[in-house]
Amino acid sequence: MPQTKPRVLLVQGANMTYLGKRQPEIYGSTTAAELDALLLEQARASDCELEIFYTHVEGEAIGRIFEAAEGGADGIMMNPAGFSYAGYALRDCLNAVTLPYVEVHMTNVEKRGIHSVIVERADGVVFGLGVHSYVLGLQALLHLIAARTK
Amino acid sequence: MPQTKPRVLLVQGANMTYLGKRQPEIYGSTTAAELDALLLEQARASDCELEIFYTHVEGEAIGRIFEAAEGGADGIMMNPAGFSYAGYALRDCLNAVTLPYVEVHMTNVEKRGIHSVIVERADGVVFGLGVHSYVLGLQALLHLIAARTK
Amino acid sequence: MPQTKPRVLLVQGANMTYLGKRQPEIYGSTTAAELDALLLEQARASDCELEIFYTHVEGEAIGRIFEAAEGGADGIMMNPAGFSYAGYALRDCLNAVTLPYVEVHMTNVEKRGIHSVIVERADGVVFGLGVHSYVLGLQALLHLIAARTK
Amino acid sequence: MPQTKPRVLLVQGANMTYLGKRQPEIYGSTTAAELDALLLEQARASDCELEIFYTHVEGEAIGRIFEAAEGGADGIMMNPAGFSYAGYALRDCLNAVTLPYVEVHMTNVEKRGIHSVIVERADGVVFGLGVHSYVLGLQALLHLIAARTK
Amino acid sequence: MPQTKPRVLLVQGANMTYLGKRQPEIYGSTTAAELDALLLEQARASDCELEIFYTHVEGEAIGRIFEAAEGGADGIMMNPAGFSYAGYALRDCLNAVTLPYVEVHMTNVEKRGIHSVIVERADGVVFGLGVHSYVLGLQALLHLIAARTK
Amino acid sequence: MPQTKPRVLLVQGANMTYLGKRQPEIYGSTTAAELDALLLEQARASDCELEIFYTHVEGEAIGRIFEAAEGGADGIMMNPAGFSYAGYALRDCLNAVTLPYVEVHMTNVEKRGIHSVIVERADGVVFGLGVHSYVLGLQALLHLIAARTK
Amino acid sequence: MPQTKPRVLLVQGANMTYLGKRQPEIYGSTTAAELDALLLEQARASDCELEIFYTHVEGEAIGRIFEAAEGGADGIMMNPAGFSYAGYALRDCLNAVTLPYVEVHMTNVEKRGIHSVIVERADGVVFGLGVHSYVLGLQALLHLIAARTK
Amino acid sequence: MPQTKPRVLLVQGANMTYLGKRQPEIYGSTTAAELDALLLEQARASDCELEIFYTHVEGEAIGRIFEAAEGGADGIMMNPAGFSYAGYALRDCLNAVTLPYVEVHMTNVEKRGIHSVIVERADGVVFGLGVHSYVLGLQALLHLIAARTK
Amino acid sequence: MPQTKPRVLLVQGANMTYLGKRQPEIYGSTTAAELDALLLEQARASDCELEIFYTHVEGEAIGRIFEAAEGGADGIMMNPAGFSYAGYALRDCLNAVTLPYVEVHMTNVEKRGIHSVIVERADGVVFGLGVHSYVLGLQALLHLIAARTK
Amino acid sequence: MPQTKPRVLLVQGANMTYLGKRQPEIYGSTTAAELDALLLEQARASDCELEIFYTHVEGEAIGRIFEAAEGGADGIMMNPAGFSYAGYALRDCLNAVTLPYVEVHMTNVEKRGIHSVIVERADGVVFGLGVHSYVLGLQALLHLIAARTK
Amino acid sequence: MPQTKPRVLLVQGANMTYLGKRQPEIYGSTTAAELDALLLEQARASDCELEIFYTHVEGEAIGRIFEAAEGGADGIMMNPAGFSYAGYALRDCLNAVTLPYVEVHMTNVEKRGIHSVIVERADGVVFGLGVHSYVLGLQALLHLIAARTK
Amino acid sequence: MPQTKPRVLLVQGANMTYLGKRQPEIYGSTTAAELDALLLEQARASDCELEIFYTHVEGEAIGRIFEAAEGGADGIMMNPAGFSYAGYALRDCLNAVTLPYVEVHMTNVEKRGIHSVIVERADGVVFGLGVHSYVLGLQALLHLIAARTK
Repeated sequence: MPQTKPRVLLVQGANMTYLGKRQPEIYGSTTAAELDALLLEQARASDCELEIFYTHVEGEAIGRIFEAAEGGADGIMMNPAGFSYAGYALRDCLNAVTLPYVEVHMTNVEKRGIHSVIVERADGVVFGLGVHSYVLGLQALLHLIAARTK
Repeated sequence: MPQTKPRVLLVQGANMTYLGKRQPEIYGSTTAAELDALLLEQARASDCELEIFYTHVEGEAIGRIFEAAEGGADGIMMNPAGFSYAGYALRDCLNAVTLPYVEVHMTNVEKRGIHSVIVERADGVVFGLGVHSYVLGLQALLHLIAARTK
Repeated sequence: MPQTKPRVLLVQGANMTYLGKRQPEIYGSTTAAELDALLLEQARASDCELEIFYTHVEGEAIGRIFEAAEGGADGIMMNPAGFSYAGYALRDCLNAVTLPYVEVHMTNVEKRGIHSVIVERADGVVFGLGVHSYVLGLQALLHLIAARTK
Repeated sequence: MPQTKPRVLLVQGANMTYLGKRQPEIYGSTTAAELDALLLEQARASDCELEIFYTHVEGEAIGRIFEAAEGGADGIMMNPAGFSYAGYALRDCLNAVTLPYVEVHMTNVEKRGIHSVIVERADGVVFGLGVHSYVLGLQALLHLIAARTK
Repeated sequence: MPQTKPRVLLVQGANMTYLGKRQPEIYGSTTAAELDALLLEQARASDCELEIFYTHVEGEAIGRIFEAAEGGADGIMMNPAGFSYAGYALRDCLNAVTLPYVEVHMTNVEKRGIHSVIVERADGVVFGLGVHSYVLGLQALLHLIAARTK
Repeated sequence: MPQTKPRVLLVQGANMTYLGKRQPEIYGSTTAAELDALLLEQARASDCELEIFYTHVEGEAIGRIFEAAEGGADGIMMNPAGFSYAGYALRDCLNAVTLPYVEVHMTNVEKRGIHSVIVERADGVVFGLGVHSYVLGLQALLHLIAARTK
Repeated sequence: MPQTKPRVLLVQGANMTYLGKRQPEIYGSTTAAELDALLLEQARASDCELEIFYTHVEGEAIGRIFEAAEGGADGIMMNPAGFSYAGYALRDCLNAVTLPYVEVHMTNVEKRGIHSVIVERADGVVFGLGVHSYVLGLQALLHLIAARTK
Repeated sequence: MPQTKPRVLLVQGANMTYLGKRQPEIYGSTTAAELDALLLEQARASDCELEIFYTHVEGEAIGRIFEAAEGGADGIMMNPAGFSYAGYALRDCLNAVTLPYVEVHMTNVEKRGIHSVIVERADGVVFGLGVHSYVLGLQALLHLIAARTK
Repeated sequence: MPQTKPRVLLVQGANMTYLGKRQPEIYGSTTAAELDALLLEQARASDCELEIFYTHVEGEAIGRIFEAAEGGADGIMMNPAGFSYAGYALRDCLNAVTLPYVEVHMTNVEKRGIHSVIVERADGVVFGLGVHSYVLGLQALLHLIAARTK
Repeated sequence: MPQTKPRVLLVQGANMTYLGKRQPEIYGSTTAAELDALLLEQARASDCELEIFYTHVEGEAIGRIFEAAEGGADGIMMNPAGFSYAGYALRDCLNAVTLPYVEVHMTNVEKRGIHSVIVERADGVVFGLGVHSYVLGLQALLHLIAARTK
Repeated sequence: MPQTKPRVLLVQGANMTYLGKRQPEIYGSTTAAELDALLLEQARASDCELEIFYTHVEGEAIGRIFEAAEGGADGIMMNPAGFSYAGYALRDCLNAVTLPYVEVHMTNVEKRGIHSVIVERADGVVFGLGVHSYVLGLQALLHLIAARTK
Repeated sequence: MPQTKPRVLLVQGANMTYLGKRQPEIYGSTTAAELDALLLEQARASDCELEIFYTHVEGEAIGRIFEAAEGGADGIMMNPAGFSYAGYALRDCLNAVTLPYVEVHMTNVEKRGIHSVIVERADGVVFGLGVHSYVLGLQALLHLIAARTK
């Protein structure tokens, strides 16, 4: 397995399609498409395969994560976004698959009084840095995958 | 924009398809189809375009609201029904779009100990009047749209 | 009874006399006198008798409601305003009289973290629409009275 | 002092004027006037002077209690009724005067989830027995007055 | 049944045997034996049969109440004393038998921050009057029995 | 109706497809397919028609239950799994249909600090016995259906 | 050990002797004696030895369970009934003996707002099915014993 | 405006008329009349006009404050006393008028576990110093008025 | 009194008979009989009379403590064990007798999240040291008795 | 002692050195040095000795207060600032020394939702007046010292 | 290691230097110096090396404990005193070093409603016995050290 | 300013000196010295000046941060460690200085139930990645500094 490229799934939770149009004073003006391009470029540079999946439906995120786990993905990154508040089923799903999981948020959710019920499952967490949270989050996930495959 | 008819989306949340069959001692015996006819008639009389969307899936409601916002809708009315309890993602979605939003409930939810997590986002709220909550809710929404377009 | 005009009492709770002068960024600039004129006009148009009673003293509101109930009023509308926080005695009073009761608030009290202890007694509730909350509230009350006298 | 008749003030709190008309399934059908007659008769038989004061306004109850204390009353009985929920000022008033105080309620307030904030000040408490709560409450108060004047 | 004397069971809960020796500044100096004599005398005068049962064991109180209910008792009076805090099984027992139940406490338990979990089941409640709580409690119970046998 | 076979819908909530692969130290190694075979065999032996429906999406479970109710099903069994935490809409749905409902969990959810918000609607509940919870759950449901059709 | 019959102790907690006489609208009309006959018959059919022990005293239940554990019992079934609320000592006792333990309740305790403090210790739990809860509970316990002796 | 004397309203809340007679071990023996004399003297010395208003009725305090605000008062001082516990309407009233507000208490209310719901509105607060709290409170208010008129 | 040996009662609460057999990884392998021997030996060496009383029934512990108090005991030591959680009646009993009371626990109950409701009555407390908690507890009690008889 | 000048220690808690530079929109632009000069001048005018001590370390404040108490100081004034939140040890220290203690805060801490755990120990409290809180605080402390030395 | 004397560090937390001068009705009149002498004498008699360290600064206690752990100490005893309330960092420090830790308090902190956040880390706990708490605490610590070095 | 190297202060909170020796199963075996070397190397590579400051005393951390702010530092990174629980003064300090602040924790503090009271002030947060949290944290801080100086 060390020879193959690491394969990573990024799940973008509820409302993330609206990025750039949604409260730009909070979330900035980078759109979802621009974010995807940035991350795919970073993935290429880091020699990893990145798939990005957007959904507003928690159960679809669960289905996609099981599919990834069975299809040989090496790690999961997620911005649970709208799933942060009550995504208990998603948390159980991540407990069920045993892949490294990194959670990212664009804002300092603690400062805004938002508590992600999924974060307790995370192996690594990055938040508060806007789009840069994803950049560091992907680095963190690749770091965890590399540590595991040693 | 003042010349065009206002366009309104009504979202009927989880379990509303069952209206009329569901605990009629609480919700009355008007069916979903009868309610739709009543509201479409009122819309015609008020010279507005009304679309009614039923779903049991919170994420589908989110998707439909974004679609409406991008498609030029002027306001959203919703009975969150089963989404009232944990619809945080829906609340964030309504924060993301900046359209006037009126929330309606058929029953006095406060009397029944139910708290809608979405209501804090509403510009106007009507509840406790059965089917008539929708009638007044639509008036309220048109009032808000007119005030905005002035 | 169907031949006679419906008779309605509107109670304006603590601090409402100051309307228009009080935090206009929250409550708007319509004064109490202007609001009264507007509602009396609406009452005339709807062919109902409307009496408006202002008081800062919760016990006086209680006394006035009992008086109305004994004097043959058909319904009560109230903006409890300053009585919202601790008006338990007022709630018991409304439970004691068996008239339809509609509660209105000018602002979205839920958004402001205010909980009316009286609202659980209401047959209908309208809030968040400024002065227009009264307009719809009166319609709601007349609707309830008509339904009852059928 | 033993030669003089004991003098007692009974305060009937918010909503008590409506007794007999108010939710008779809870409070019975005895009216306020009938209750007064019954208690005045009991007072005569027990050789005490009883004054009964009804008010919906907590501050008037406070004023009347201070007046009684300064006028030489020997004890206070009260059904705080609507004042039970938030009558903190009334509780402080009863702490200020040092007369024996008996609190009565017609219903078992504990069963109904009601907590009187004044009851912690009471020397004696009787509840749950309908009109008979007053009968035993008056006996209790006369017992306390007699014990004190020994 | 109206011709026969009413039969009453008084249950004295945990620690009541120690009355008179136990914190006399709170409970007074009347002993358990003196209290019994007083109440039996009152029972004779009121023409009722009174049995008094002391126990520190909640389950024994339950057994004794079922025995009384099956043996034809007409009412139960109890000072739950030490059972007040966690006597849920005793409360269920009193719900199971359908006899009138009067609860008494010697002290104002509310003032001392003690909440009886059984009190919600009571038909009548008297507290705060020391030994005199029992005297009025017995009157209350006889009143309830008489009302029921009418 | 007594002549026809009882018809039962089993809903397997979020994450249950992963059974056998998911934390086997908690949930055992029986797979979803093996569990289905076992239950269908039991259904045949008990002469009932059993349909099994897996979904990660709460709204789909709601839709399927309404469909079953309208299609003449006699009872619902469900392991809410990932829906346990916030499945309020599902609970309302089960309140809307009036069929017997049995809830099962493979583990002792109480020991694990998990509270199902749906369980309060259940007519019967079985948990803690692994796969055997389903076996007894189906017996329980057939017992309830038989009792109802008597 | 596989050759010998399994030996089971059933503990019936506080107030269960009154079954059939106690709130039949909640608990049904089967008496304790009838329930015992039913279960002993089921035990015979299942080839197990069943002993049934009724007590209102939590400490006696504890003593009886230790006695059973030392005397070679293979499993414990209990309806804690009145001990559900505060039976912490009983829970510790069941933790001390290492036998399989199945807890049963006749009603859906969750719907009634009752929380058993002992249930977290149970290996299996059945509730809501009236007398049938015992029938399935005994099956569950025998299943657990069989699984253990394999 | 700098040439005119500042005009100040002091509101003495519920129970303050009883000062000197009420729990002197807590509140000291200065009577209400003596306190008034002291403060009027201080006002004269400070060249301000001071009006003192006593009431037990929260709504009357509200009315008096609106009257002062409209009559040109420059600041409000209040010892809410019995209104401290539930004076939410009074707090809203003080928010409505935009005058400087200083709150005083004779005792250290924090030490006594009393929380004034009005204090969050205060511009300045002095407590714990008995009658001297008023002396410093008046200084504080004049300081605030002077700062504003600069 | 200084000439006579101090007399001490040790109460072993619910489940303590099972010591040594019960969760030895928590409570160690010393049996109840071995513990008794150890403490009686220590008592002999310290020249005091020690009686040890085991019970699973809280009410029996209460009865035994009153008996000791009336029989001239000089101090009470107790490991409330299973009574720790809800032994309010036992706490009141210890308040009623005025003897020195030392509470011991074998484990660090705080670390295990257990709160003894009786401990607030203790004059001295020792816990966390296994069997040695009793050794130090007896020393502590003798120290308190000696201090008192000086 | 009346002849000597009163000696006062002012403790400035965590972060106060930064005064003037720290969030001037909240705390104003007066620097720590300017505040010191102002207060020393006021002290001179009031004929008292004032020492001012700044520290970010709670334990150093404790040490300095004990030193003052032993060195003959007559009173303590403190702005606990950053110690307000968790300064329990400081509160115990002030309980240990028996000097008059006045607590000051520049802002209305109640309005900002900050609760000082030390304030319950204060003899006098002044807050909300910016730098002027210190001026009135020093007056209050001198008033208390004078009252004590009378 | 068995041949060498055990080495013990006693940490005296915030405010303990003031012992004897501080609220003697609570803490007694033994001074810190007298306590030290007593404990050093006991240490000599028990053949152990005892070092006593007083500090008001939590961080200094942490530093001293790390120093002791690295310098070969065998156990830690501490009266956290003023650190009890919020000494989380101290608790983490004690978790970091793996030495036996005994916590002592002079008073029954539970009776006084004080909760030490550090106590959950303790291997043994003694409180309520004044100065004698230290005597037994040192015995407890030596017992734990001896058990470990066996 | 763009030409000069960015200057960064890293504060290591209470207990961090013990890194590598402290619970290595949680914190890993990298020592504080090794961590420092790693970070200084990263700083060199990133062309920034990094100063690392260890302290167990919250007030010293406050002092050091003010010193850095006045000395021209460009950003603060901190692992509050033992200060996380009650470091309110530290949070106020960071609010007072207006530098970018990144908070790091080695473990997933959310999973361990630890809440940092300081994190709400952070501009960026990284946790759960052991020593790698510092590496990403420093990148994040430099990113924030660069964004600011643009």
